Amino acid sequence: MGRWEPDAGGRLARAALELYAERGYEQTTVAEIAQRAGVTERTFFRHYADKREVLFGASDEVYEVLASAVGAVPPAATPLRALTAGLVALAGMFAERHEHARQRQAVIAANASLRERELTKLAAMATALADALRRRGVADPAATLAAEAGIAAFRVGFELWLAGPGKADVAQVVREALDELGGVFAGGETSRRVVDAG
Amino acid sequence: MGRWEPDAGGRLARAALELYAERGYEQTTVAEIAQRAGVTERTFFRHYADKREVLFGASDEVYEVLASAVGAVPPAATPLRALTAGLVALAGMFAERHEHARQRQAVIAANASLRERELTKLAAMATALADALRRRGVADPAATLAAEAGIAAFRVGFELWLAGPGKADVAQVVREALDELGGVFAGGETSRRVVDAG
Repeated sequence: MGRWEPDAGGRLARAALELYAERGYEQTTVAEIAQRAGVTERTFFRHYADKREVLFGASDEVYEVLASAVGAVPPAATPLRALTAGLVALAGMFAERHEHARQRQAVIAANASLRERELTKLAAMATALADALRRRGVADPAATLAAEAGIAAFRVGFELWLAGPGKADVAQVVREALDELGGVFAGGETSRRVVDAG
Repeated sequence: MGRWEPDAGGRLARAALELYAERGYEQTTVAEIAQRAGVTERTFFRHYADKREVLFGASDEVYEVLASAVGAVPPAATPLRALTAGLVALAGMFAERHEHARQRQAVIAANASLRERELTKLAAMATALADALRRRGVADPAATLAAEAGIAAFRVGFELWLAGPGKADVAQVVREALDELGGVFAGGETSRRVVDAG
């Protein structure tokens, strides 16, 4: 095994996901993942802290994509437009990877500790998004609220996309989720507007 | 020690929180919590599965309060009104307990595993809230989106209240967070409205 392994991180992630799907997360060892990827255990640990982190590895990239998309929206645009741009860019990271994302979600859904980790990562994404909105001059609590609600909408849209056959445009599904959320909150005031909810 | 201990669950929860605040969560044992509450370890385990669960014990009650408040709103009211009623009722559970809630939050914030558990509980609250909205005839994905965004707004409002001196009305703070969120999403469409965000 050479010291230089092209895309060892990516191969390890794919190997791990295959093994988790085949044998279950609990039953899979780091040694097996390394073997399937054709690298040493030492290489595994150069890329990931443990077998849980293989599923959550790309988070620095995620925060960067979010932040730069939010920052690239013209200064005069609304917080909602900036938020949407960030979440659409985030969705774009998964556009070509429906099957991978679906498998990953199934592995996470089957394990309580992975579900908790996923929630923590989503909370960190909301924090990154709120920071990016504050850098645009959006004040708190609006920045935090928009980011938290935006990530919630992202998650719901993303799960709808995963449940489908993968032909839908994930960015469009996320955009629709944000529009739908806008519809719920369209009244603005929480106690004034009364129409038939049926 | 008699078999009948009035409010042993509540006394254990208070004793646990005191000890976690004094000595740290990791350093506190179940034996110490039981001793401080004046009950046996056996009694502790009749009430809570482990020392983590002492901090998250009342969740069945929380789901019930949420569901019944959402259900009690007149059928013709908007989903937003029903959502608001649920979250205001949830906030009401903490109204007289600012110091307790503040201490509990500080203990949770200091420990990664407790933070993950808290996120899981909040996710379960969102699920309960979405169920209650669906029982009112709110369709998905609107029910899930409203519930997830609503819980996000609740959390932000609740944290603002905790950070304050405790004289504010927690229900009112949560209501304002929902209004603020409504302001962000007031445009409805995610790409149309353009005003100065500064």
